[in-house]
Amino acid sequence: MKKIPVGILGATGMVGQNYIALLAEHPWFEVSYVAASSRSAGKKYGEATAGRWLLPKTYHPSVANLVIEDANDVTRAAAAASHGDLAFVFSALEMNKEDILTLEDNYASAGIPVVSNASANRWTDDVPMLIAEVNPDHADIIPLQQAARGWKKGFIAVKPNCSIQSYMTPVWALLQSGYEIKRMIVTTMQAVSGAGYPGVPSLDVIDNIVPYIGGEEEKSEMEPLKILGSIENGKIKKADAPLISAHCNRVPVTNGHTAAVSVEFGAKKPSTEQVKQIWAAFRALPQELKLPFAPEQAIIVHNEGNRPQPNKDRDIHKGMAVSVGRIRPCPVFDLRFVGLSHNTIRGAAGGGILNAELLKAKGYFT
Amino acid sequence: MKKIPVGILGATGMVGQNYIALLAEHPWFEVSYVAASSRSAGKKYGEATAGRWLLPKTYHPSVANLVIEDANDVTRAAAAASHGDLAFVFSALEMNKEDILTLEDNYASAGIPVVSNASANRWTDDVPMLIAEVNPDHADIIPLQQAARGWKKGFIAVKPNCSIQSYMTPVWALLQSGYEIKRMIVTTMQAVSGAGYPGVPSLDVIDNIVPYIGGEEEKSEMEPLKILGSIENGKIKKADAPLISAHCNRVPVTNGHTAAVSVEFGAKKPSTEQVKQIWAAFRALPQELKLPFAPEQAIIVHNEGNRPQPNKDRDIHKGMAVSVGRIRPCPVFDLRFVGLSHNTIRGAAGGGILNAELLKAKGYFT
Amino acid sequence: MKKIPVGILGATGMVGQNYIALLAEHPWFEVSYVAASSRSAGKKYGEATAGRWLLPKTYHPSVANLVIEDANDVTRAAAAASHGDLAFVFSALEMNKEDILTLEDNYASAGIPVVSNASANRWTDDVPMLIAEVNPDHADIIPLQQAARGWKKGFIAVKPNCSIQSYMTPVWALLQSGYEIKRMIVTTMQAVSGAGYPGVPSLDVIDNIVPYIGGEEEKSEMEPLKILGSIENGKIKKADAPLISAHCNRVPVTNGHTAAVSVEFGAKKPSTEQVKQIWAAFRALPQELKLPFAPEQAIIVHNEGNRPQPNKDRDIHKGMAVSVGRIRPCPVFDLRFVGLSHNTIRGAAGGGILNAELLKAKGYFT
Amino acid sequence: MKKIPVGILGATGMVGQNYIALLAEHPWFEVSYVAASSRSAGKKYGEATAGRWLLPKTYHPSVANLVIEDANDVTRAAAAASHGDLAFVFSALEMNKEDILTLEDNYASAGIPVVSNASANRWTDDVPMLIAEVNPDHADIIPLQQAARGWKKGFIAVKPNCSIQSYMTPVWALLQSGYEIKRMIVTTMQAVSGAGYPGVPSLDVIDNIVPYIGGEEEKSEMEPLKILGSIENGKIKKADAPLISAHCNRVPVTNGHTAAVSVEFGAKKPSTEQVKQIWAAFRALPQELKLPFAPEQAIIVHNEGNRPQPNKDRDIHKGMAVSVGRIRPCPVFDLRFVGLSHNTIRGAAGGGILNAELLKAKGYFT
Repeated sequence: MKKIPVGILGATGMVGQNYIALLAEHPWFEVSYVAASSRSAGKKYGEATAGRWLLPKTYHPSVANLVIEDANDVTRAAAAASHGDLAFVFSALEMNKEDILTLEDNYASAGIPVVSNASANRWTDDVPMLIAEVNPDHADIIPLQQAARGWKKGFIAVKPNCSIQSYMTPVWALLQSGYEIKRMIVTTMQAVSGAGYPGVPSLDVIDNIVPYIGGEEEKSEMEPLKILGSIENGKIKKADAPLISAHCNRVPVTNGHTAAVSVEFGAKKPSTEQVKQIWAAFRALPQELKLPFAPEQAIIVHNEGNRPQPNKDRDIHKGMAVSVGRIRPCPVFDLRFVGLSHNTIRGAAGGGILNAELLKAKGYFT
Repeated sequence: MKKIPVGILGATGMVGQNYIALLAEHPWFEVSYVAASSRSAGKKYGEATAGRWLLPKTYHPSVANLVIEDANDVTRAAAAASHGDLAFVFSALEMNKEDILTLEDNYASAGIPVVSNASANRWTDDVPMLIAEVNPDHADIIPLQQAARGWKKGFIAVKPNCSIQSYMTPVWALLQSGYEIKRMIVTTMQAVSGAGYPGVPSLDVIDNIVPYIGGEEEKSEMEPLKILGSIENGKIKKADAPLISAHCNRVPVTNGHTAAVSVEFGAKKPSTEQVKQIWAAFRALPQELKLPFAPEQAIIVHNEGNRPQPNKDRDIHKGMAVSVGRIRPCPVFDLRFVGLSHNTIRGAAGGGILNAELLKAKGYFT
Repeated sequence: MKKIPVGILGATGMVGQNYIALLAEHPWFEVSYVAASSRSAGKKYGEATAGRWLLPKTYHPSVANLVIEDANDVTRAAAAASHGDLAFVFSALEMNKEDILTLEDNYASAGIPVVSNASANRWTDDVPMLIAEVNPDHADIIPLQQAARGWKKGFIAVKPNCSIQSYMTPVWALLQSGYEIKRMIVTTMQAVSGAGYPGVPSLDVIDNIVPYIGGEEEKSEMEPLKILGSIENGKIKKADAPLISAHCNRVPVTNGHTAAVSVEFGAKKPSTEQVKQIWAAFRALPQELKLPFAPEQAIIVHNEGNRPQPNKDRDIHKGMAVSVGRIRPCPVFDLRFVGLSHNTIRGAAGGGILNAELLKAKGYFT
Repeated sequence: MKKIPVGILGATGMVGQNYIALLAEHPWFEVSYVAASSRSAGKKYGEATAGRWLLPKTYHPSVANLVIEDANDVTRAAAAASHGDLAFVFSALEMNKEDILTLEDNYASAGIPVVSNASANRWTDDVPMLIAEVNPDHADIIPLQQAARGWKKGFIAVKPNCSIQSYMTPVWALLQSGYEIKRMIVTTMQAVSGAGYPGVPSLDVIDNIVPYIGGEEEKSEMEPLKILGSIENGKIKKADAPLISAHCNRVPVTNGHTAAVSVEFGAKKPSTEQVKQIWAAFRALPQELKLPFAPEQAIIVHNEGNRPQPNKDRDIHKGMAVSVGRIRPCPVFDLRFVGLSHNTIRGAAGGGILNAELLKAKGYFT
């Protein structure tokens, strides 16, 4: 089978490198187009990243010879698309919000679907913010988005912030099982890779933690409500609950965000044992469709008393599973647990790829 | 002025070393007696700790030549006390609970007051669990304890667990200002020194956190209720509130426990600005008495957005101050903040020394 | 093909766990026998290691149900061997030297070959100390060892200390190319996993390094001479050179030993460019035999100026390759370079497995 | 006594902050003038550094209200000097070399002595590169420098790179005792603070080391030769020996550079015991003059087998002492040892202050 040619916008940055590394042996997609800032444009990808490659895992040899395009020059991408050499792009752009909004719009209006990791379009009300196991049906807004904008093939779909991924799937599994969640207090201990590269200065995390990450608490409190929302009149309407309080901290961990969560249920409250069963049994559309990046088990329940831990559990199912543990009653609310997910895989490039697989399976790349 | 001769039980362990280092230049107390397990007994302190001294700060030269006594042999301490060479002991014993209960009892009944860092007697109902700024009046139970046990000079007083000290003084300051606190959800990020030495294996905290500390959550949820309790019929009666949920985590930090706290007030709720003012203005008995180890300012309010941080703020006022920051509303409860205190100073040996100073000032060492 | 049944002595310890994890999908070997201290004997392996499994990678499901034997009870192993259920054992024993000497001897004399990770037999003069790429011919001493001891099937073969593996293969490649090496000064920066678990206390490596590792410098200076030695009169005679000075340090790294090396050649000195070519072109017997654990490329030459680095390069070729970089002249000697290898894979269990593959290919497991 | 008013060029950067913190209670000097880039000029120091103050230690309250001058505007400094409000400046400039050369020259020619931390003038042949204990006599070149340049009061004096300070004083003590040193091979494990702030990205040092620091090895090999050189014809002539090979590595340590050193002596070789005695007995001019920042003991000999260590020993004598340990024979050369010094105190701002004290004591600030 000929693979689907995909592009990466922001291909030389940290998230872009992750996309390219994770796609090295993808069964459906192959990287055919790389774009970055005008500074890198014109160089071969291998040369542009020599000495600046940040990951242990490397990329497909063919990518080394791709010439980097200027991400601002949409005409190049449009030409590639018209020749059948580019089916869609992953956006890993690192720019200011306004520029990203403009650029993602330009790609989409040029007929190139955009599967984005950037936060710029997360609150655009007809753009779905997808976690493939949680709200795959939000993809249904894509035809409405296209109709409203007058786009034929292009569209924009985004993924949420990495900080919420270690508990959103577990939360969803409980909601789906009929347990209303009214309120949550969440404290995250987040890996430095979440800030990119160079990102967090080492002086800030050797023998230290930083109890603040700019903008992260606001995103953590708001994004779940859109993800749990519903499509009404061509827009995604936010859910009313749960009400969330997020305390976000940076800790000396390379990869893997951990969250300590207290949950208050509605009138119907599951036992600890029921919670474990719900999570262990959880299957969703990506698992049913056997999407290539779908973790075999979306939620891994750890029964050992001191797990999950970032350096032991972040790589389960190639970094795509969410680990939960320390499932126990909360003296103040109802339930407490610890959630963990790999922030640059599940929470960024891997999550984006899974979203693209979902959209492919649903027929949105035509 | 002749200094008061004091003893250290468990003098070679990590907490014992901290006591000895912190007392090196104490204006009131001097270490005259060191006791440890029978294994170390008979050696000079300097020799026993050569190559095993864990701290950057060292001890008073005179301590090097003290011969270590067997901590189980109370008669040696009693003899020293009878000659005026030992006024009281700090207990930094590291044994099982039963043995510590017996031993601290033996010292006290031999006429030697015990100011203890150990957890064994924390729930003995006529033993005060003191934070000098919070419940100095609980020392009033000492005469009742002595009467009930038939002790004349001896008594036992303890300090609480290190994990709660980064928020208990701020909590107390709010209570004292008339704001009832109903519930709290607290997530701690605790330093490895809290587990002593060798303590936490390095493989557990390089590029990792451990979301579990044995027994710590239970202590964190219960001890505040005794500290906030009242003396009734010769016993300390637990307070009813606040109800606390604690999530305790080990992080790669040497010293300094950080807590992310959400607080639910009663009907009367202070504004963020009022909270800051209450904390900045807080003074307590140790400050009034100008006790040597009392921090000039018991609570340090940080207004920078990303503070307090362990490696920048733990040493304020020689490690005895509690730092607070990120004081802001909580979307779920009422107030959020981050607290920080130095766990081996404020939270252990330094806190014990401050308690002893308080008891001295109140006339309990006679 | 039926797999060869192998045993692990010391199966519950850190090195033992590594063996079991690495053998999970081995094409030739399968773990059929696990032995540990009498404390664990009688328990199923899965139960004995529940909550104590130290690795991200897990083991073959069938191992969970193996009942742990007492490693001191050689008769159990002998019985298994006589039934064809045990072909040889990997020794990952953690005991004192005398006990290991006795025990490895007992297994071998009971007809069970011992491929050992322990240091006890490294200086037994008829025991080969193998690095499969460097001195595979030292296996030739096995028949002589068997004859001298009166053993028929059993024998003992060991591997060297992990600290030297990041530079011994590069050193050998230069020697083999005809460049005599007279002297070397080596400074290692070693990962904490080299000390096992619990191993190095976290207080020793957070914001710290320890410039000492007990016994490591002596091993690093002596073992290369045996490895580079020759078989004479049924014994391995030490080589005369190179003379080595080793400075061994512990650094806050989980896995991956790094070495900074200065090399003094004899009269014939290669250029930097020649050194790079020799290393890039190096192939040895494991590569020729295509042994399952042989790295495709035994020595990886890094040309970027700041590599190799532990967290980016230790896992190349599944942790079995040695990385070299910063190849440049030495102002004092002739050549400088940085070597890196994964200490628990290449330097321990993985190296042991490669040795066993080599011995299998040479026909020593009969 | 009225204190001497001093200025800091580059006052808001990391080295500048260190100068200001260390001078907070200096008995001779007080900070009266702060200069930085034009971006900060015009702001009060306290405001400009709010939320950007990098150190646990804070500054003298009076500094908060100093208005930051533009470091490029020498006329402001000249005016202050003419009013007796500025006696000399510490240069902690972080610019490119050419700009620093010009600027330091401008200050000096404006009559303002420059005691510099920057590397720009280290190889200017009439500029002394001082370690106060090693080559205080190199200050004698100052009048020659002034004469050659036509400067009356102004001059430039610099300090060497931080990487060499953990072994240069010990090396000097041996040379001074009559033991010629022919060659040295040195491997450093350097703290991240040496790269300033933000400096080293955390992703590079969590679970990692970087075996490369740009320019550091060259400096480490060359600067000792100037320091050990002699004044001839108005210039400092490099010494011929020792020949040095430096391997410089970045490790996950906040403060404190550690060096593993192998030394080859000339014909006369001291015993290990003699080396220890020489170092323990070493006193130099700063100690004789009792300069405020002179460590009471310039070289601390550690006899414990695993010391010195950064987080235990860097702060001895307020970070101004050099620690040595593991003093033992070298199988390849003659002597091996481990040296440690605090890179931002002894190796940067503290060393600069000690140099200024020396120059003051010698009468160069007139």
